[in-house]
Amino acid sequence: MPRTHASLPRLYVEPDLSAGAQLTLGKEQSLYLAAVLRKSVGDEVVLFNGRDGAWLCRLISDSKKSVQLELVERIAGQTPVSDLWYGFAPLKSERLDYVIQKAVEMGVGTIQPVITRYTQVNRLKHERMVANAIEAAEQCEVLSVPSVEPEMTLERLIDGWPADRTLILADESAASSSPVETLGSLKGHKVGILIGPEGGFSDEERAKLIALPYVVPISLGPRILRADTAAVAALAVIQAIIGDWR
Amino acid sequence: MPRTHASLPRLYVEPDLSAGAQLTLGKEQSLYLAAVLRKSVGDEVVLFNGRDGAWLCRLISDSKKSVQLELVERIAGQTPVSDLWYGFAPLKSERLDYVIQKAVEMGVGTIQPVITRYTQVNRLKHERMVANAIEAAEQCEVLSVPSVEPEMTLERLIDGWPADRTLILADESAASSSPVETLGSLKGHKVGILIGPEGGFSDEERAKLIALPYVVPISLGPRILRADTAAVAALAVIQAIIGDWR
Repeated sequence: MPRTHASLPRLYVEPDLSAGAQLTLGKEQSLYLAAVLRKSVGDEVVLFNGRDGAWLCRLISDSKKSVQLELVERIAGQTPVSDLWYGFAPLKSERLDYVIQKAVEMGVGTIQPVITRYTQVNRLKHERMVANAIEAAEQCEVLSVPSVEPEMTLERLIDGWPADRTLILADESAASSSPVETLGSLKGHKVGILIGPEGGFSDEERAKLIALPYVVPISLGPRILRADTAAVAALAVIQAIIGDWR
Repeated sequence: MPRTHASLPRLYVEPDLSAGAQLTLGKEQSLYLAAVLRKSVGDEVVLFNGRDGAWLCRLISDSKKSVQLELVERIAGQTPVSDLWYGFAPLKSERLDYVIQKAVEMGVGTIQPVITRYTQVNRLKHERMVANAIEAAEQCEVLSVPSVEPEMTLERLIDGWPADRTLILADESAASSSPVETLGSLKGHKVGILIGPEGGFSDEERAKLIALPYVVPISLGPRILRADTAAVAALAVIQAIIGDWR
């Protein structure tokens, strides 16, 4: 994407985007553009919907209640939806927002909260997680917004896990070789990564996971990593070695 | 380290640690152990000083003003100081605390704040950064606390850069091959990683950096990463490929 558009505000919208089309934004986005960012008629913004790429648009009305935009031209093609599955034991409020944001920055396709024995929270505000994912995509120029799934228990996750997808697990003791070698052997495979809670998995959970045929443990180094650090670190090595960093 | 000691409080202290020695803690740590954690005579804690490994200790006095400890036995050998140099454009307060914490979790040896054109803050509270590094080491069972250097400008950093150390730079445009290959070619080299500010380096700064003979650019993928995400992601791939994850 041309960096000349880098400073333009980017908004996620639902409707189809095509040349010459006009679009009226809802109250929240209109207020944001017109009152917060003080955009006026003639100013440019970028819109995306996860399907049609990124579009340069121009304001034709700057009413704080309903900004109208005219689509000028497509400035970036749609990036494919990522196949990378990311499961994690949810944390509390700001830390949860942060983890969702990082997952989007790291290019995951599915965000799956998983309730484990030592998970800090059991009930999540799904709308808030989705809003955070969208905001992260807007801020980091990610054109595909990952899906945010409703939380499920670890038991249910295991019960329903598709046999054709490898599940990477950060587990220092079970990991046998260097993470680079282990991940390298997974080139071309569908993968997911499961990050446990701050307290770790219970002995029972861990034993059950390690025994599953599709689970591949990797080491994330000799130090203890907080859950949010582990998430970014694991996603980084996955994307670098078998993902879209190449 | 045996996981049986995992739940014990860990404190960083300055004095030498040896079997049978006794140690009196200062006001702050005494208050923390005796009043906040409510430890009493006979309770165990773990001490480390960055030189002598980790020591299991027992309280022999639980006065809130001066807790006295008896060193029982060493439970972990001293890990070598990391050679990994980490430079970054500092962020504001909580985000800065977070970045320091992540750097410690990721096993860097030197933390160097670097003031660049678009750096958000120019004056840093060195004591606060050191305190954060120590706290992160305590919480993540890191036995070597990285040094935290006073901030310096990018110009001065470049002027004084030792020719025998490679400086890795996250720069998508300049990076030629996959980060795995590029990093792999640096096995055995002394390396540093420089993470720019949220606004990126200026065109002038970037051109100057790319031209330096010891600078090796790598790509951190096709998405824009926030500075704190970039830091963890870059450190993860460095540690995994040529660092201590193996």
